[in-house]
Amino acid sequence: MTELIAKKRDGFALSKEEIDFMVEGYTRGEIPDYQMSAMLMAMYFRGLDKEETVNLTMAMMHSGDTIDLSGITGIKADKHSTGGVGDKTSLVLCPMVAAQGVKMAKMSGRGLGHTGGTIDKLESFPGFSCEMTTEKFFENVNSVGFAIAAQTADVVPADKKLYALRDVTGTVAVRGLIVSSIMSKKLAAGADIIVLDVKVGSGSFMKTIEDARLLAGEMVEVGKAAGRKTVAVMTDMDSPLGCCVGNALEVKEAISALRGETKGDLLELCLTIGSNILLEGGIAESEEKAREMLVRSIEDGSALKKLAEFVEAQGGDSAAVWDTSLLPEAPIKYEALSTCSGYVKSMQADGIGLVSLQLGGGRVTKESEIDLGVGLVLHKKTGDFVAEGESLATIHASSMEKAEKAAEMLRKCYEFSAEKGEDSPFIKGIVR
Amino acid sequence: MTELIAKKRDGFALSKEEIDFMVEGYTRGEIPDYQMSAMLMAMYFRGLDKEETVNLTMAMMHSGDTIDLSGITGIKADKHSTGGVGDKTSLVLCPMVAAQGVKMAKMSGRGLGHTGGTIDKLESFPGFSCEMTTEKFFENVNSVGFAIAAQTADVVPADKKLYALRDVTGTVAVRGLIVSSIMSKKLAAGADIIVLDVKVGSGSFMKTIEDARLLAGEMVEVGKAAGRKTVAVMTDMDSPLGCCVGNALEVKEAISALRGETKGDLLELCLTIGSNILLEGGIAESEEKAREMLVRSIEDGSALKKLAEFVEAQGGDSAAVWDTSLLPEAPIKYEALSTCSGYVKSMQADGIGLVSLQLGGGRVTKESEIDLGVGLVLHKKTGDFVAEGESLATIHASSMEKAEKAAEMLRKCYEFSAEKGEDSPFIKGIVR
Repeated sequence: MTELIAKKRDGFALSKEEIDFMVEGYTRGEIPDYQMSAMLMAMYFRGLDKEETVNLTMAMMHSGDTIDLSGITGIKADKHSTGGVGDKTSLVLCPMVAAQGVKMAKMSGRGLGHTGGTIDKLESFPGFSCEMTTEKFFENVNSVGFAIAAQTADVVPADKKLYALRDVTGTVAVRGLIVSSIMSKKLAAGADIIVLDVKVGSGSFMKTIEDARLLAGEMVEVGKAAGRKTVAVMTDMDSPLGCCVGNALEVKEAISALRGETKGDLLELCLTIGSNILLEGGIAESEEKAREMLVRSIEDGSALKKLAEFVEAQGGDSAAVWDTSLLPEAPIKYEALSTCSGYVKSMQADGIGLVSLQLGGGRVTKESEIDLGVGLVLHKKTGDFVAEGESLATIHASSMEKAEKAAEMLRKCYEFSAEKGEDSPFIKGIVR
Repeated sequence: MTELIAKKRDGFALSKEEIDFMVEGYTRGEIPDYQMSAMLMAMYFRGLDKEETVNLTMAMMHSGDTIDLSGITGIKADKHSTGGVGDKTSLVLCPMVAAQGVKMAKMSGRGLGHTGGTIDKLESFPGFSCEMTTEKFFENVNSVGFAIAAQTADVVPADKKLYALRDVTGTVAVRGLIVSSIMSKKLAAGADIIVLDVKVGSGSFMKTIEDARLLAGEMVEVGKAAGRKTVAVMTDMDSPLGCCVGNALEVKEAISALRGETKGDLLELCLTIGSNILLEGGIAESEEKAREMLVRSIEDGSALKKLAEFVEAQGGDSAAVWDTSLLPEAPIKYEALSTCSGYVKSMQADGIGLVSLQLGGGRVTKESEIDLGVGLVLHKKTGDFVAEGESLATIHASSMEKAEKAAEMLRKCYEFSAEKGEDSPFIKGIVR
């Protein structure tokens, strides 16, 4: 390992055998953390070339269990987002594509963050659970079209160890390491089609479109090298996605989108990802046709029906799908009034995420309890005109004190200007 | 610490407080190896500026015990070599300067290497020991003028930990780290005058004069910043120093030099270092005068007498100082005959060191037993003409088998050319 560190330090590429040796040795605990962290820092300065990134991804994927989806009939798709604020895409996308016959067998986690993970959000439905046997999971995917299970198998243990180490050694921001971390898990999850949502902007890890394009390009390349149909869309995360941030609030917004009542960026994103899945799966012959099919699944109610079936199949009460007032709700609703007037020039998406966290909507530590009802509903987003005294957002809080503090924090996230800025496109590009 | 790693990674200098925090935390085990190794690799790429190097040296010096030499009267000098093959300088230098009244209280180790350390070499004198109390050590320095003791105090524990980590993480070759490793120990040893011998060439760590000059310059700067008189000489290590490599053989060569029978690079080095000590100590008014004083100590036998006094003071039998046939001797003497003819163009000094190691003259592991009698006496060095069949060196070995193998290895260290190359100076420069 000392030699491999020196090789990378001096700017040479590591061979497949060397990468396999390193990942296997590290996963088994034979290569110590202190050598791996020196290697990671050398990678920070020297980078990884495309071949190294592919080989690292494969080595990581094979460090643990891989999921065999051959028990599921038809086309299997998967989606991954690099993470942003207000991202409830899965809740809208999965029912829409399932209504077209594409299967999605998703593994999800709870995680730390501004809100809970997809599993936490779904627990807004009374009785809903993501704990199930593999047999039940496959059975649900086959019958309903999609299922979301909590991670049980020991998938990519190398990534768990590596990520923890990167986090405390200043080596998170290495493209080859980000690519291999994401793609090793997606490849291990077994789908034929992988669509990646690479977020760009203040609320995401990639701050510039150039960085996002490089990341997207490499992920697609790695996916294809592994024989999977892989597409990446690059989407704006300067503002939160949609208008709701919070667990039950995001479920409500997803239902509203499936009802055809909410359009905007959230629907646009789901149509873009969904149509790429249908195209790659050979179900639609053009992106236009694919979008039409997905829009129809909203108009005819089949997508919403899929959501209800899914909730029932995982033990939940689907009544709330039809009557969202049954979802958890915070006792306090407080309007965060603007103290400025003008056009919204920018919103700090990550700052808005912190508002949700402060309200109790997310986890600070693994042990934190999540308050499903709290969060915020934005009324003004970038480009909108706001008069002084108009509400920027409705804060859903457990106490007045928290609501007032949240409103204070929220106001600081907005920047105003006298003139309306240029609209920037929400979909920044697609890499195939 | 994660923040400090990121700061260095991004090319910013660390403050004194940050460096103190890091060294103290690491020495106490509060900062884990895996964070320190990431920091070291970031330092490899970003370097350390002069202020950081000074601060790191000071922090390391204060990580453990420092030696208080106030119990020793007069001027206290110390010398350090960056390490080479055949380096028996201390054995000649200390008696010479002690004969002029300068005190040298040296701590030494055994170490791994081509030959043993200074302590091993001195154990060629029957009964000689470097184990003694601090009181006895100071008493000997005061009465004889110099003493050499085995390291007992817990000097610079930070360096022990750091060096072990650097060794297995590809981060040895960072100038600021080399400087602070050497200088923290020299400063902790307490002398007023420090002369550094920076070796340049194939048998040393610094391969080019440019690298050596930078290293020497920074060490001198750090020494001065700590209020010590500091000088660095840069000397050739493309060939071994002197003609003998091996423990007792080097003692013999040192005695021969003190008798005035051996001149050449070894004597030149000792006169250069010694005259700088006398100059810095204010004992001589010019380098020329200083050299004259030192040469006189050889001619009048006072330096050799100091060596005998020193051996006796540390429990050894000084008879061998006057009759070197009493020193350990190997049973086999074997001439390594040249299979080529021509001028010696180059000798791989480190390869010649390995010959000594192979003969049993050095330690491969801490537990290795050293054979004090073995080694080699070079008859041909760079620039000399060699006829085919002439002896390159006499191998002193414990068996014919080892002698033949050593001769084979030795021949591979020599390169010949038809014409005599240009002489390159042995002393490459002095940094004050």
